[in-house]
Amino acid sequence: MARFHCLTFLTDYGLEDAFVGVCHGVASQIAPDLRIIDITHLIPLGDIRRGAAVLAQAVPYFPPAVHVAVVDPGVGTARRAIAVEAGGSVFVGPDNGLLSAAVTAAGGAARAFSLTNTALWLDTGAATFHGRDIFMPVAARLAAGVPLDDAGDPVEVTSLVSLPRPECRLAGNMAHVEVVTVDGFGNVQLSLPGADAPRAGLTPGAAVTLAWDGTQITVPFVRTFGDVAPGEVLCYRDSGDWVAIAMSGGDAARRLGLRAGTRMTLTATGGGP
Amino acid sequence: MARFHCLTFLTDYGLEDAFVGVCHGVASQIAPDLRIIDITHLIPLGDIRRGAAVLAQAVPYFPPAVHVAVVDPGVGTARRAIAVEAGGSVFVGPDNGLLSAAVTAAGGAARAFSLTNTALWLDTGAATFHGRDIFMPVAARLAAGVPLDDAGDPVEVTSLVSLPRPECRLAGNMAHVEVVTVDGFGNVQLSLPGADAPRAGLTPGAAVTLAWDGTQITVPFVRTFGDVAPGEVLCYRDSGDWVAIAMSGGDAARRLGLRAGTRMTLTATGGGP
Amino acid sequence: MARFHCLTFLTDYGLEDAFVGVCHGVASQIAPDLRIIDITHLIPLGDIRRGAAVLAQAVPYFPPAVHVAVVDPGVGTARRAIAVEAGGSVFVGPDNGLLSAAVTAAGGAARAFSLTNTALWLDTGAATFHGRDIFMPVAARLAAGVPLDDAGDPVEVTSLVSLPRPECRLAGNMAHVEVVTVDGFGNVQLSLPGADAPRAGLTPGAAVTLAWDGTQITVPFVRTFGDVAPGEVLCYRDSGDWVAIAMSGGDAARRLGLRAGTRMTLTATGGGP
Repeated sequence: MARFHCLTFLTDYGLEDAFVGVCHGVASQIAPDLRIIDITHLIPLGDIRRGAAVLAQAVPYFPPAVHVAVVDPGVGTARRAIAVEAGGSVFVGPDNGLLSAAVTAAGGAARAFSLTNTALWLDTGAATFHGRDIFMPVAARLAAGVPLDDAGDPVEVTSLVSLPRPECRLAGNMAHVEVVTVDGFGNVQLSLPGADAPRAGLTPGAAVTLAWDGTQITVPFVRTFGDVAPGEVLCYRDSGDWVAIAMSGGDAARRLGLRAGTRMTLTATGGGP
Repeated sequence: MARFHCLTFLTDYGLEDAFVGVCHGVASQIAPDLRIIDITHLIPLGDIRRGAAVLAQAVPYFPPAVHVAVVDPGVGTARRAIAVEAGGSVFVGPDNGLLSAAVTAAGGAARAFSLTNTALWLDTGAATFHGRDIFMPVAARLAAGVPLDDAGDPVEVTSLVSLPRPECRLAGNMAHVEVVTVDGFGNVQLSLPGADAPRAGLTPGAAVTLAWDGTQITVPFVRTFGDVAPGEVLCYRDSGDWVAIAMSGGDAARRLGLRAGTRMTLTATGGGP
Repeated sequence: MARFHCLTFLTDYGLEDAFVGVCHGVASQIAPDLRIIDITHLIPLGDIRRGAAVLAQAVPYFPPAVHVAVVDPGVGTARRAIAVEAGGSVFVGPDNGLLSAAVTAAGGAARAFSLTNTALWLDTGAATFHGRDIFMPVAARLAAGVPLDDAGDPVEVTSLVSLPRPECRLAGNMAHVEVVTVDGFGNVQLSLPGADAPRAGLTPGAAVTLAWDGTQITVPFVRTFGDVAPGEVLCYRDSGDWVAIAMSGGDAARRLGLRAGTRMTLTATGGGP
């Protein structure tokens, strides 16, 4: 009996080749009724940090699922292939930190296994396409009902690779943060959870001074894009409920020269309680 | 009981982020058996006119469906979110004209509702991602059988926002038209319906003089690309049955400097009855 | 009764327009339960050779299916539209060589038909969008159970258009080969099957001298990317089991100036038995 009806798929494979389609084909042979939803395949090549951020923010909107993610610059090296159970879902991918933020967001790893049971792999003999030959066939079999502990050797959840958490320190009306990711529109997501924004004085009506790399600008903290004029930069709580910087009708990241990893200080003045 | 088995999805979200996948996830939680077909997510950011043209030409090829379209530069402003019944399908999106051409092509709006029933929304508290939080969950519930009049307050269909109709005037063997849209190949679709082409003398075998912005060229009016030599510009009735301009094996829009909104006069000479 | 549950779709339509979605819509009207898997729609416009290579390498990973492929610079000319049975699957597309490598890889054509039975087409009267009007509706009907010999006039399988086979000659420890295709990562696939590599001395541990267009470099023949340092060029058996050239963490095609059709000589020294 199928354990999961939904499998999600995120990679840096791009869309020019057959890589994504072939992985769908492999899964559909194993689990013909499985619904496969592509999250994105345009993670910049090898950008584990971006992949981790996108995955972590997407997962809450799916039903319990097998989540397959492959951004894997270490393919062909000794890094482990893993399946991690967290929050009623299973995460499958390389053990390089890619899954870590999503696993944390799902409530933390309950169990983890190294995908050493080659009987669940696709038998192709190839060593370079783990998405097709290992991750997707194992994930599809898990979705179809193969018990998780058949996937391979158990792994201590404390041994799983995690990405360093981006800096986020609050001190009075100042917040020391980091750019976590930039989306395709140039919206800049910071490491400050929306829920913590009021503690830093970031409430609608406040003015926020952003300082980074010797640059300093002051922008309004607002509820939504419509609250500022076109072309104006704004600070707000984004759709994933993180504090973020955007430009109405424009690309804030390009305009301000911001990118993942940029450190920034936010200082709030004014604003409501 | 499900009312629709098919939901289509058109946006300007791009494919680099998880936006599209997340909307699929939201819909699949509400309506697990719903078939979701992506029309495109590469409408240029905020280009309502292009979105409207692409949607209107796609809809006739689908079974009765809920059509969700989101090109929404006014997200977060007071523009309404609407669901419109037309021709046995339901169109869901912002009330900014995006849906209007498709609704007209489907036979005109029978009923319309403002999506004010928050019980059908996804409860996230976010104000910036209406595709995920309003349009998609409401659409999926409508597909799953929620009656349309549960979506919110009824709206006068005459109050729905429409895009201005592009100019199209026939006078003898001349047609005053406008470029409606340019596809990814550079083919240039004009505002002249194919069915009206013969009245303007545009029949296979005719020569057509195209005049715009001080430029003038004469090209053959043909049935298909194969009727001209590679590199030659042609005028024809396109696959949506609109009069269009193309270049065999090339990009007519770039070559001729044409884009949506360019006004043009077509003068036919010769051609059959 | 449905004959196939899976239909694959490969084109050069791009993703900016509704072309791909519309074809899905047409198929879903005819065969509502058919699973449609997109292989890719970013074949460079009109590049039959690239389309053929991508299709041939993808097909082995799918269940028996109707494979629809459209890269068709000759649309509107006299080239035939065909359906070819091979290896338990059916291939549908233009008779311009696009299908030939996949058909060969599937075991060769058993039967072929010209799609002359217009009763299976979508009746639109348009002459330029064969994907929507001919290939997809015929394919969906075949998947739904219409017998293949209803598709139209039988065609001699020996009359089907084939692409010229790329050069591949072995002479001692030398191999005269050709670049077949370059993937989105810049990995360069050669016309030498992996199974023949040992006969040319290409085994892990060997050094390979690559010579083309007056350039000559020597690189290691390895099992996988992880066996070389970042930035290093390598020769290996790729995930489709063809001999290929790549750069660890980089784009070999751009770095070396290689593209489809480049002729190259490989000379192996050292290496195991």
